Amino acid sequence: MFGRHPDTRALSELSKVQLLDTTLRDGEQAPGVSMSADEKAHIARGLDDAGIDVIEAGSAPTGQQERETIARVADLDLDATVTSFTRGVKRDIDQAMGCGVDGINLVVPASDRHVREKVATSWAENRQQTVELVEYATDHDLWVEVIGEDGSRADPDYLEDLLGAAIDAGADRICYADTVGHATPDRTLAYVSRLAELGPVSTHTHDDLGLAVTNVLVSLAAGADMVHGTIGGIGERAGNVALEEVAIALAHGYGIETMALEQVYELAQTVAAATGIDLPPNKAVVGENAFTHESGIHTDGTLKDDAMYEPYPPETVGRQRRLALGKHAGRSGVRAALEEHDVEVDDDELEAVFQRVKQLGERDKRVTDADLLAIAEEATGETHERRVELVELTTVAGVGTPTATVVISVDGDERDPVSATGTGPVDAAISAVEEALAGHAAAAALDSYHVDAITGGTDAVVTVEVTMSRGDRSVTVAQSDSDITRASVEAMLYAIDRLGVPDDAVPADD
Amino acid sequence: MFGRHPDTRALSELSKVQLLDTTLRDGEQAPGVSMSADEKAHIARGLDDAGIDVIEAGSAPTGQQERETIARVADLDLDATVTSFTRGVKRDIDQAMGCGVDGINLVVPASDRHVREKVATSWAENRQQTVELVEYATDHDLWVEVIGEDGSRADPDYLEDLLGAAIDAGADRICYADTVGHATPDRTLAYVSRLAELGPVSTHTHDDLGLAVTNVLVSLAAGADMVHGTIGGIGERAGNVALEEVAIALAHGYGIETMALEQVYELAQTVAAATGIDLPPNKAVVGENAFTHESGIHTDGTLKDDAMYEPYPPETVGRQRRLALGKHAGRSGVRAALEEHDVEVDDDELEAVFQRVKQLGERDKRVTDADLLAIAEEATGETHERRVELVELTTVAGVGTPTATVVISVDGDERDPVSATGTGPVDAAISAVEEALAGHAAAAALDSYHVDAITGGTDAVVTVEVTMSRGDRSVTVAQSDSDITRASVEAMLYAIDRLGVPDDAVPADD
Repeated sequence: MFGRHPDTRALSELSKVQLLDTTLRDGEQAPGVSMSADEKAHIARGLDDAGIDVIEAGSAPTGQQERETIARVADLDLDATVTSFTRGVKRDIDQAMGCGVDGINLVVPASDRHVREKVATSWAENRQQTVELVEYATDHDLWVEVIGEDGSRADPDYLEDLLGAAIDAGADRICYADTVGHATPDRTLAYVSRLAELGPVSTHTHDDLGLAVTNVLVSLAAGADMVHGTIGGIGERAGNVALEEVAIALAHGYGIETMALEQVYELAQTVAAATGIDLPPNKAVVGENAFTHESGIHTDGTLKDDAMYEPYPPETVGRQRRLALGKHAGRSGVRAALEEHDVEVDDDELEAVFQRVKQLGERDKRVTDADLLAIAEEATGETHERRVELVELTTVAGVGTPTATVVISVDGDERDPVSATGTGPVDAAISAVEEALAGHAAAAALDSYHVDAITGGTDAVVTVEVTMSRGDRSVTVAQSDSDITRASVEAMLYAIDRLGVPDDAVPADD
Repeated sequence: MFGRHPDTRALSELSKVQLLDTTLRDGEQAPGVSMSADEKAHIARGLDDAGIDVIEAGSAPTGQQERETIARVADLDLDATVTSFTRGVKRDIDQAMGCGVDGINLVVPASDRHVREKVATSWAENRQQTVELVEYATDHDLWVEVIGEDGSRADPDYLEDLLGAAIDAGADRICYADTVGHATPDRTLAYVSRLAELGPVSTHTHDDLGLAVTNVLVSLAAGADMVHGTIGGIGERAGNVALEEVAIALAHGYGIETMALEQVYELAQTVAAATGIDLPPNKAVVGENAFTHESGIHTDGTLKDDAMYEPYPPETVGRQRRLALGKHAGRSGVRAALEEHDVEVDDDELEAVFQRVKQLGERDKRVTDADLLAIAEEATGETHERRVELVELTTVAGVGTPTATVVISVDGDERDPVSATGTGPVDAAISAVEEALAGHAAAAALDSYHVDAITGGTDAVVTVEVTMSRGDRSVTVAQSDSDITRASVEAMLYAIDRLGVPDDAVPADD
């Protein structure tokens, strides 16, 4: 297929594919997203460290604050070429130069719809203006890429004429833009192979039809040698192509190195934190579940041979394999999880634990460490005496300072009430618990605290998941309640209890 | 490219592509996912209504509860063929038949790794057993599809031999399975075109390299005529191919109808609710932002011509276009939003509102209806007198019944305190507000309540977004606070205030 059609070349024969990252520009144009200058500078450094070739730092015409941010990225002294988006007007180019960028991504209308309806100019004028702007920018020593906006819906003859003129005027490269994510691979091949005759070609794809990656591979086969995209595939509407997907597809499938893949997961997390767009659990390469196995068949196979259900080792992209327990768990996965918690079981006990794990999973529940340990104790008859318990919790919040009082018992001894304040009732309650245990060996660190998004009614059941650790042991507990405060405190105390209370740690009343 | 390589056919010439949905089986195998029998039956009905050809209802060997659920789906009297996954053992087939399904997806090992390491059998034995199982199943009038597990890593000669034997033994179709999402399009083409010589071929792709859709199109071009996938692309690891992406790519790109696309959004929301896996905002077709425009260039273009920045009308997939305001807003988008709220501005005022909207957007904030109205009033000098305000909020929660007391003022008149209980402090507080306004014209309906996921510390700032309506007007307000209860009540009262209080609606004290 790729590389065997007369108009294409084999991807495996490509010597070099460059990446242009537009997370800071097209990525930020996703609805509701705005990144601070600090966040953008941090991401730009990460992109540069990972070997991205061109970083589009923003869009100079957007405003003064944007220009300051672009200037800041341009000042970072990165190896990457730093560019600004500009429209087809001279003022935009001046503004971009004012930011000290190395180059520009000059976007000019290419389709009939864009030339006539949006910009209200004629074909000839549009072409002439493009030529003048390219000459102006190259005269000022800018690296210039000319993007024919909505190119995939343009008349191919006009697109060729327009971008050919840009190359003749001195543009460093031209770009095929599937601005609205409209193109089939057939169309992409037809357009890019024509443009590749003119000069170096980039490809800019969107995922509205789920074809962003498809169209990148087709573009490369048709002669493109630079790919525009974003980390995590964020961007307008359905987003741009995810660069990490392009990078792993080229590396794993065709042996073509583009970026340092082992850095991409951390980079994706940084972008998610800055944009507020969570990484989908099932996103290739960077999703939480991309290397997680739950089903019995898969877990069992993976325990026999890491590669049984993975196309490549997770370490390739800076990740680790994870085995999860749930409805589809198998016996060998359950045994492996028990071993991690130093719990030994015989075959009958394993069978009992296995059946209970599946039952619990079927009840639409995550099976956490705490669940597994409780099940194992039931099966082995080694009953766990709950030692740390919540006796009383009162929170008062509202217009005043949120306050909480907790009474905890350890080994049946009810401790004195401890009250604390916080930024909200949950924070106050957690502070009270921490204070109640401060200095005692039963204390433990709250490593992570997570509440799923709440949608629906105000009486929705909220699930709080906490991970607590002491030394090198950690336990994850999920607790559901329609009261977020109670769920938080119960989860925390249960995790502490599960970590075990050293005998000398029973807190003495003062 | 597609359709022009000697081993492929043009996609546009395909007369019929069938879809097999495995949301209820492979989709459910995503870590942490478990759906109830009710949920599965509801989804199955939705899939059937949308015209899905084959519904894989589950995996009979998984357990008794799973079998009861499969039986329930099989009893729904759907137009679709209802199947169960089975492994290559007779007991699984018996269990599937016990559920009353129309057919089976018989999965047999195909790669060296799976045949020798996982199942520990020989090539010949594996082939022989497959033949016997196919004969057994077809003797019992089952529709039989034989899937060569890990087929994309199998020796192609063996795969052809194995699946050819299955066809000869009477299987209705065979399936090329890229079980671990490992295949390049080149490999997919090579394998599928060989299998297509043997009989009807399905394709089962995973997205570990971001190539799930690419490999579906290549498979179809190479001769496959049925596609396995899930709604929303959920599934093991990075998930299966998203059927709605395949469907829109085929419909928009090649004029091939597969499923009723206008039902796919509701279906995706149903699946998201049942699985707890939220739809990513930038997911093609079904993501919240797939038809949302924020940036000035895009909004302006869209206002001139709907199709300017959309590949196809959102109504095609049961959606509506949405214009959002934020950092990248443009003047015409701001004007359109103001008009929606019946606010008239002159050019200077528009400019002022526009600048403030951008500033607010830059501060990493969503610009909600309430924000826009406040900005507009500042610009026009028509100051809005806040009429409904929170004077006092007290919540008490913990081990007892969560209770809240609110004092509200309307037009400066402080009302009597109203207390209410609820399932948690937020619910109690919202009930108290509703009670305080019950029967008054100021009352309004809480249409939606949403809290983003909370990750990090217990003192994290929580953003509550509510939409409230009265009659045909609705207002969305976002409120951030580290106290979720206070944020909820403030958002609600602000929305009510913004909806306006009819003059005859000032609630009288008793």
